[in-house]
Amino acid sequence: MLTLHGDHRSGNCYKIELALAQLGLDYRFVDVDILRGQSRTPEFLVLNANGKIPLLQLADGRCLAESNAILCYLADGTPLWPAERYARAQVLQWLFFEQYSHEPYIATARFIVQYLGRPPERAVDLAAKMAPGRRALAVMEQQLAVQPFFCDAGYTIADIALYAYTHVADEGDFDLSAYPAIGAWLQRVREQPGHVAMIGG
Amino acid sequence: MLTLHGDHRSGNCYKIELALAQLGLDYRFVDVDILRGQSRTPEFLVLNANGKIPLLQLADGRCLAESNAILCYLADGTPLWPAERYARAQVLQWLFFEQYSHEPYIATARFIVQYLGRPPERAVDLAAKMAPGRRALAVMEQQLAVQPFFCDAGYTIADIALYAYTHVADEGDFDLSAYPAIGAWLQRVREQPGHVAMIGG
Repeated sequence: MLTLHGDHRSGNCYKIELALAQLGLDYRFVDVDILRGQSRTPEFLVLNANGKIPLLQLADGRCLAESNAILCYLADGTPLWPAERYARAQVLQWLFFEQYSHEPYIATARFIVQYLGRPPERAVDLAAKMAPGRRALAVMEQQLAVQPFFCDAGYTIADIALYAYTHVADEGDFDLSAYPAIGAWLQRVREQPGHVAMIGG
Repeated sequence: MLTLHGDHRSGNCYKIELALAQLGLDYRFVDVDILRGQSRTPEFLVLNANGKIPLLQLADGRCLAESNAILCYLADGTPLWPAERYARAQVLQWLFFEQYSHEPYIATARFIVQYLGRPPERAVDLAAKMAPGRRALAVMEQQLAVQPFFCDAGYTIADIALYAYTHVADEGDFDLSAYPAIGAWLQRVREQPGHVAMIGG
């Protein structure tokens, strides 16, 4: 059976929980409390030298890190990650966009506000995340104004990855009411068969 | 023919130039000067709403952004990106590691030092990149101490992606002499058939 090492409050973990649910896969969940440093213990670092969750462990013990790589592994060979060469790369384009241009601003702002309790010493850092976060949302809005999902192939792991932190972006001070196409897309994602909500959201 | 919109000084562009050379693919190069804002012009934003290079344009006009997604597109079906499910995901794990835990520190430090000329107002920002950059190098060192390339399958696009900014990390104040396994790996990468050096390095 698959084992998911994660923290239910993390959107990166929620991506995997959502994909596992929609793919109908059984798994065991091992709680790793990131706020208590449990992803940096010697035991955990043996599994992932980079000290991050989520981490997927296969039945044979092999591990896989990086939320979006795990999504690709789970969705490989399914309609959630189309096999046609350009379509496959298009999904990856949005997965890399999510990790480089979206998550470091939108997820981290939520982390500072929601989990660290908006400490004064992080105020400058939090403020600096607003402009790039809004740029990422504007790029998403432009794409979703012309098509229902990020990729031409329909609902894919690109939508799962971008939904994870976008649907809780308000918890990091982002006002989603300015992005109507994103709002309509969030609703379409929630209506997909097998959708599950974020436990720690 | 393929068209690569890029800037020779960018490691993210060099990744693509190196992969294209090793795959023996012909392409046209269109220079986009990022320091003069040429990736943010209205004309360029039509090609990539996210305003970033490199951008690959296929013969039929379709575009693909995000350096590591482009690498996957080009290497799909070749030994540079193995098709076996776990091996494919392992390569992706390192590609996401590169974009999230490596590039934002190691590439950006080089950009501040080498291209912005180490301006005083970026000194705090530059200093803040050292610890996470060294953490990324330590993760690489640990992996390369036990195997010749990042993935079990041998030389892949994971090595190409990580080589691009690691081999010029010293230009961003990182001292590579502390990482002997990385040093040996850099040499192995340089010895791969069809290797080309970075033009703007």
